[in-house]
Amino acid sequence: MKTINVGIIGYQFMGKAHSNGWLKAPLFFDLNLRPILKMACGRNQQAVNAFAERWGWQETETDWKKVVERPDIDIVDISLPQHLHYEVAIAAAKNGKHIFCEKPLAFSRAQAEEMLRVAEDNKVLHYLNHNYRRTPAVMLAKQLIDEGKIGKIFHWRGAYQQDWIVDPNFPLTWQLRKETAHAGPQWDLNSHSVDLALFLVGDIKSVSCLTTNFIKERPLPGEGATAFSSGTGANVEKGEVTVEDAALMMVEFENGAIGSFEATRFATGRKNTNTFEIYGSRGSLTFNQERMNELQYFSNDDPENAQGFRTILATEPSHAYISNWWPPGHIIGYEHGFVHAMADFLIAIDKKSQSIQILRTV
Amino acid sequence: MKTINVGIIGYQFMGKAHSNGWLKAPLFFDLNLRPILKMACGRNQQAVNAFAERWGWQETETDWKKVVERPDIDIVDISLPQHLHYEVAIAAAKNGKHIFCEKPLAFSRAQAEEMLRVAEDNKVLHYLNHNYRRTPAVMLAKQLIDEGKIGKIFHWRGAYQQDWIVDPNFPLTWQLRKETAHAGPQWDLNSHSVDLALFLVGDIKSVSCLTTNFIKERPLPGEGATAFSSGTGANVEKGEVTVEDAALMMVEFENGAIGSFEATRFATGRKNTNTFEIYGSRGSLTFNQERMNELQYFSNDDPENAQGFRTILATEPSHAYISNWWPPGHIIGYEHGFVHAMADFLIAIDKKSQSIQILRTV
Amino acid sequence: MKTINVGIIGYQFMGKAHSNGWLKAPLFFDLNLRPILKMACGRNQQAVNAFAERWGWQETETDWKKVVERPDIDIVDISLPQHLHYEVAIAAAKNGKHIFCEKPLAFSRAQAEEMLRVAEDNKVLHYLNHNYRRTPAVMLAKQLIDEGKIGKIFHWRGAYQQDWIVDPNFPLTWQLRKETAHAGPQWDLNSHSVDLALFLVGDIKSVSCLTTNFIKERPLPGEGATAFSSGTGANVEKGEVTVEDAALMMVEFENGAIGSFEATRFATGRKNTNTFEIYGSRGSLTFNQERMNELQYFSNDDPENAQGFRTILATEPSHAYISNWWPPGHIIGYEHGFVHAMADFLIAIDKKSQSIQILRTV
Amino acid sequence: MKTINVGIIGYQFMGKAHSNGWLKAPLFFDLNLRPILKMACGRNQQAVNAFAERWGWQETETDWKKVVERPDIDIVDISLPQHLHYEVAIAAAKNGKHIFCEKPLAFSRAQAEEMLRVAEDNKVLHYLNHNYRRTPAVMLAKQLIDEGKIGKIFHWRGAYQQDWIVDPNFPLTWQLRKETAHAGPQWDLNSHSVDLALFLVGDIKSVSCLTTNFIKERPLPGEGATAFSSGTGANVEKGEVTVEDAALMMVEFENGAIGSFEATRFATGRKNTNTFEIYGSRGSLTFNQERMNELQYFSNDDPENAQGFRTILATEPSHAYISNWWPPGHIIGYEHGFVHAMADFLIAIDKKSQSIQILRTV
Repeated sequence: MKTINVGIIGYQFMGKAHSNGWLKAPLFFDLNLRPILKMACGRNQQAVNAFAERWGWQETETDWKKVVERPDIDIVDISLPQHLHYEVAIAAAKNGKHIFCEKPLAFSRAQAEEMLRVAEDNKVLHYLNHNYRRTPAVMLAKQLIDEGKIGKIFHWRGAYQQDWIVDPNFPLTWQLRKETAHAGPQWDLNSHSVDLALFLVGDIKSVSCLTTNFIKERPLPGEGATAFSSGTGANVEKGEVTVEDAALMMVEFENGAIGSFEATRFATGRKNTNTFEIYGSRGSLTFNQERMNELQYFSNDDPENAQGFRTILATEPSHAYISNWWPPGHIIGYEHGFVHAMADFLIAIDKKSQSIQILRTV
Repeated sequence: MKTINVGIIGYQFMGKAHSNGWLKAPLFFDLNLRPILKMACGRNQQAVNAFAERWGWQETETDWKKVVERPDIDIVDISLPQHLHYEVAIAAAKNGKHIFCEKPLAFSRAQAEEMLRVAEDNKVLHYLNHNYRRTPAVMLAKQLIDEGKIGKIFHWRGAYQQDWIVDPNFPLTWQLRKETAHAGPQWDLNSHSVDLALFLVGDIKSVSCLTTNFIKERPLPGEGATAFSSGTGANVEKGEVTVEDAALMMVEFENGAIGSFEATRFATGRKNTNTFEIYGSRGSLTFNQERMNELQYFSNDDPENAQGFRTILATEPSHAYISNWWPPGHIIGYEHGFVHAMADFLIAIDKKSQSIQILRTV
Repeated sequence: MKTINVGIIGYQFMGKAHSNGWLKAPLFFDLNLRPILKMACGRNQQAVNAFAERWGWQETETDWKKVVERPDIDIVDISLPQHLHYEVAIAAAKNGKHIFCEKPLAFSRAQAEEMLRVAEDNKVLHYLNHNYRRTPAVMLAKQLIDEGKIGKIFHWRGAYQQDWIVDPNFPLTWQLRKETAHAGPQWDLNSHSVDLALFLVGDIKSVSCLTTNFIKERPLPGEGATAFSSGTGANVEKGEVTVEDAALMMVEFENGAIGSFEATRFATGRKNTNTFEIYGSRGSLTFNQERMNELQYFSNDDPENAQGFRTILATEPSHAYISNWWPPGHIIGYEHGFVHAMADFLIAIDKKSQSIQILRTV
Repeated sequence: MKTINVGIIGYQFMGKAHSNGWLKAPLFFDLNLRPILKMACGRNQQAVNAFAERWGWQETETDWKKVVERPDIDIVDISLPQHLHYEVAIAAAKNGKHIFCEKPLAFSRAQAEEMLRVAEDNKVLHYLNHNYRRTPAVMLAKQLIDEGKIGKIFHWRGAYQQDWIVDPNFPLTWQLRKETAHAGPQWDLNSHSVDLALFLVGDIKSVSCLTTNFIKERPLPGEGATAFSSGTGANVEKGEVTVEDAALMMVEFENGAIGSFEATRFATGRKNTNTFEIYGSRGSLTFNQERMNELQYFSNDDPENAQGFRTILATEPSHAYISNWWPPGHIIGYEHGFVHAMADFLIAIDKKSQSIQILRTV
């Protein structure tokens, strides 16, 4: 089997999810290319070493530029915070590396378009990882829409809800400051939600938006604070929260549908609720990431006295990706979307295809 | 409009539900017979007077024999505890009165068959009120089965679960003593569940049963204790619980299906869960009385990738009884089953029909 | 028992729901005032006669002015389309009649405020019937919020979704024309949703709104078309739809919460989905009118490993109104909200109270 | 890091699930022992080679006896059909190998007890893999029960429902013949369900059972038929189904609770529904494997007006195993139970502990 060398930049949450993806893709999918976990890169040598040892990355590096310049690296996996995507992606493309990049893509439409242009000019495969698309239930939604089962779409009603900063003593981590995170849930969460809307409903024509902050100041983070934990002993000193806590949007789609979005980290009790409702002239669909194996489907074609939202458990062999996993009813989880992405990406490289979902601006 | 005179015997929980039924049936259904609430009967004169005044019963009586003998009474409504059904029903039939009787019917098959025979001999309409049949969602289940949409039935899985005597200090009310209640949930609750199984699946060929008591002794009831409340100040003295606390059954149906039943007053958190699952070769159905407007339906006829249990909200005009109520999505409640029963009963009398569900033994 | 005379104006959908409410309130609630169904009024003599005969209204009338002027009428029940509320309410108040008025109240804030002022000047009890407030589960939501169980509220996420005009051949009934309906779901449906938000979250500070039409023209209605049906043989000729098909809103509340609303008649599969989510610092609530006996409640006070949305079946004696109905787990339906409203209204009159929810503009 | 050599016997469905488990356990859990995938064994050399190549097993073998005798094998993983467990386990134990064995354990209590005795005599760690125990939501159920939150248990109501042989043309695969499968869902599925009941409720005192066959004869399997698929072109010739299609049980537990079980392959629409309800004096629990990240919990300790079944999403750091996976709300799937089992097993070996769930007869 042919092999292909991957260099990953970043070793936090996404580093873990991506490493698992690269390892599992060739175990569960029949691929012509076997990914080699060649090199892991991060600023902290000790941390990147531990990461590499656990996941089997063969070498480590602390300077991302060396990764994108290494001749034996074929794929650059950008598992970095958003503000670092642009520079790395441009450099990788210029060095002829295929790009597997985490979302959200960039800080501006201009940046994103440049990233796309440079990638295309250098004829590299470029992929923006909106992993939730690659859920079998979401793929089924897409298929039903494409087959006309939903008819003309009238409504998108989406929400991405979390609750991890409801506590006013949760510290001012990097995600809550503009200089490191650029924005709050409008970028972090709504980028997922908008991507699903673009995928399933189509392009957006107009947007109006409302954002707010419920808690203006927070304790500075303690030692060892990470994305989702406050570290040891939150600081007494406080700093200003400089990204929004929640964002609402109303949009018009090009095709005449209208839509609403809500992205928040203040929906107490919602841990990772990425949900949408789609209503069309012939049927409807609803989805919730916390029950990601299920798609709700209503069809006007059903007999009048027997219509209702069906809970489709998308674990049948006919559902996307599923035949590579387990028998019907044996559900898959969050990490599987990454495995699917890696498998699709490797297939696209092997086929010299541009058929994988290409980079697009939000 | 022609009228027909009703005499009701019993004024507790069922007296209330039945009175409401007789009053509402002609308001919501187009009937040729208008029921007149002629006479209410109960042993306690003061209580029966208050009951009659509230509900508009024109006269009161404390001796049930006088009701069944009154020439101007056309319908005898037996809203009594089970141990009083047999004698009243026989007497009413012999006096030529139509009989509307609460469940469970009798203490033995012999009693029940005699009740049926006497009613038939005297050519009166006789009806055993299993009100849950007359739920639109249950009627839809029956229709789908009769149309072959479920195919050959393999499984019945039923349960009737309540929790009102979990507290060991709940007193020894009349329902917990054999001499007044004859039996516990096996009769009180499973009679409903078995009735639905007979209605939807068919006759039962063999039964095995397991019953138990979780709490053997309870305080004697205080002053004013009723069916569902313990009265003022439970007694210190205790008495033996002489009916079962819970009952399980496994059955074979004549048509080859097998079934299980559970009836209990010890299912903490279940208030009035009367639920069934029916699995057949072509489809399946599930129902829960606490969401009585909904029927879950799975069909093998759906496309392979879009199968799932549909939540049918049985509030469409095409669903039984619904066109007499409200627009789609405006749900009905527990009491509506009684209104449907009264309407059906009055229609059957008007048509000199025997088409209403006739008395049958469990 | 003292009696009080009701005159109802309007005999369609709301006429039916209100008649049932006036009849049932004194049966299930202990009231000092028994309402007498004195007079029903509608423009079509034959139709109002049939209505009165069925529901027991003693007299009929075709001129609403005669009703509001009759000395023996104590309560005027305005069950009319919205555009007729203002004139009737003002006249009723000037004649000293208590006013029970359907929603939405008026066409403008100015109209509404005048209606309120005239009612107050004439010292009549005035009530705007937002019946969904009077659902036990909604009352429980209010109670939990008032007790501080939800904490500071961050989010309201509401939707009122129906689907009865998805079919482009559904005719241009009175609800779809500006001159008769004034507006579409923004008034008809969102008035309910906004009322619940005002009740549960508080006053609104800013609003932005997006409306659209998915179907611009429809066949003119056939003979006998009503609110929810197309009559016999839809016309070939078409007319313009002059009210919106759907409306979205984003709002800021005075207390800092933000909210979104969706009102639509194009949500295929949603029959009467009036749903909200409320997220606060200490807990959260969700509700859906199609499962109106249930309230979902999440509490941060639960042990960390055992937190989750609880499905509270609001049929316990401790829940509002319920002790007047049935035992726990025996659900109530759509019409019960009206019975509760009538009961509360009669109690308020008896107590010479202004404590029932007063008229307010949306 | 110390390593330990695993030899796996069997390469079908369980071979895949176990291989994934051995690979992932050291990636996600902090283990002192790293398992080496040393040797895979199966009767078909070509098939076992392909299996080994995909999963990284270093060597292959076709004779299981050679595996259990190899000095460099430390763990024997028995991923075989049930009828082969006994002989292999006894031999492995006698050779001093730790045993990781799939369920169901054996054909008889005598066999099982001998397996246990030989394992204990040879001081090897022995583990029967009831993987569903190792679901965080099930572990939480156990914890709540052990903490007394459920109180005295009254009821177990379990069902394990699948539907893969509803089609009468599904062929007579090895699972449907007594000589290869020994029994049908009573062993295959109810062994899981009974294990959960033993784990959560306690020992069983009495059992009564009802089994049936809905389809007596089936086409002989075509070429390439496997456990869950019918192969190419089902045969015209038919053979007798010699295991049961469905089984019901009623049981008494030693602690006074009663329980019911249903195991079936004829529950149309149920793909892998392994569900239970547990009702106790202080609370209740329900679970369904198809939503395996959720546990429903009802507590009598909640305020009277706010009681209800809570949907606990068992993806918090406080839930078993979860801190090794993803942030809250990011669900796990079927395969994770195996990873947990491997991790626990390796920890137990490292600690020379017998603390992992030991072999027990059903």
